[in-house]
Parts: sequence; structure tokens; C-alpha cells
Amino acid sequence: MPGSDRKAPYAYAGLDRVFHEKARLGIATSLAGHADGLSFSDLKALCGLTDGNLSRHLQVLEEADFVALEKGYAGKRPHTLCRLTDLGREQFMAYLAELERVLRQAARATAGRSVDYRKTSPQAD
Amino acid sequence: MPGSDRKAPYAYAGLDRVFHEKARLGIATSLAGHADGLSFSDLKALCGLTDGNLSRHLQVLEEADFVALEKGYAGKRPHTLCRLTDLGREQFMAYLAELERVLRQAARATAGRSVDYRKTSPQAD
Repeated sequence: MPGSDRKAPYAYAGLDRVFHEKARLGIATSLAGHADGLSFSDLKALCGLTDGNLSRHLQVLEEADFVALEKGYAGKRPHTLCRLTDLGREQFMAYLAELERVLRQAARATAGRSVDYRKTSPQAD
Repeated sequence: MPGSDRKAPYAYAGLDRVFHEKARLGIATSLAGHADGLSFSDLKALCGLTDGNLSRHLQVLEEADFVALEKGYAGKRPHTLCRLTDLGREQFMAYLAELERVLRQAARATAGRSVDYRKTSPQAD
């Protein structure tokens, strides 16, 4: 489709879907603040997720090499340590920078536009 | 599950999925900046979406009463005008405020945490 690729300022191609999904955004933020990693159960509590949901989202993050999972034992109980990889941290920073750009654009779009200016000309009262 | 509902600071319940999906975030931002609305084809170009994708996402926004679609004609050609409703604008502003909060939280989490501080104690060199 020639011509269909013209500038699309609201396409937000830079917003990586791996981080943008809101459960994964919570997971990445949690892990970003804990350089030593977090246990599966701490992460579950911080993000308010079920076992199944957390597992599913961690798998997406692990497949992208953004998160590393270390499975071991704490005493006799299975214990999974989750942490951001260096790549994950770097890409998450890039995602946040893009998100900030989007937010600034949206703030500009909403600023002073809550009233339709064409309908409030001085003549209109 | 008693007890599973304890504070989950990274659950981001306030991030409305209707706006958070990235194509719809682009659509809402585009419309927020155009109080008089945008035509389907202008919106498609601004957001870099196909007809099918834009239709699908507009339907989600319309079902939430966040967007109103006025179907008419421009000359003999069908013409759809898309605009944010008052509710849509109000909820989008609330979504953006929540997104800003999330971004601040993530910025705090990433700040100064790129090095694992437990491994860089004075003794460790």
C-alpha cells in the first residue's frame, strides 16, 4: 500500500507491547526497584496477580530475555527468584522514555481543548 | 482467598484497559486534540491503523461511551466523524493522571538501581 506509511504521529510504534501490557508494567516496575530480584510470591503480592497470571506474564518477559527466573529451593520449598536482566532494564528504561513522550503529547492534546473553541467565539455568548 | 487482597502497589487497577491498549491510546490522544472530531480516514492516517483495526478499536471506545461516531455523507461518499464524548474526555484525563503516577513510580524504581547495591559494599571493591 504505497502512501499508507506516511507520518502517523499517534502510532506509538516505540511502545513495546511486552512492557505496555499493564500487568507486565507492574511486574517490570517491581523488579526495576529490586536489583537483587524478587521471589515469585512477593511479586505476586506486589502486583496483585494470581499464580497463573503471574506465570503467564513472566513467561512473556522471559521469552523476550527481559527477565531471568532462577528456580531453586528455600529449605524444602520450591523458590523462584525473578529479576530483570541487563537487557530488560535497558529496554524498560527506553520504554519509559517513550511512555513519557506519549504522556507529554497527550497532555498537550488535552490542554485547553475541553471546550470547543469554534463554538465559543466572542459573538456567540 | 482471604489475605490475597492486601496492598498491591503495582496492580495499577486505575489504568483503564479501554485507553491503555496502545492503538486506543493513540486514537484517544488524536481525538483529545481535535474537539470538533476527526474523520475516520484522518484518524486512520494519524494512528497508522488499517480500516479493520481502527473500526475494531472505535467500537470498543464507543461501547464504553467514550467516543461518539456520526455517520453521514460528504457529498456522495460515506463520511464518519469520530469525537470524544464528554465522558470520554473526562475519563481520558483520569487515565492520563494515573499513567503519570505510574510513570513517576517507575522512574523512582529505576533511578539509581542499575547497580546492585548489595554487591558494591565498601568491602567488596
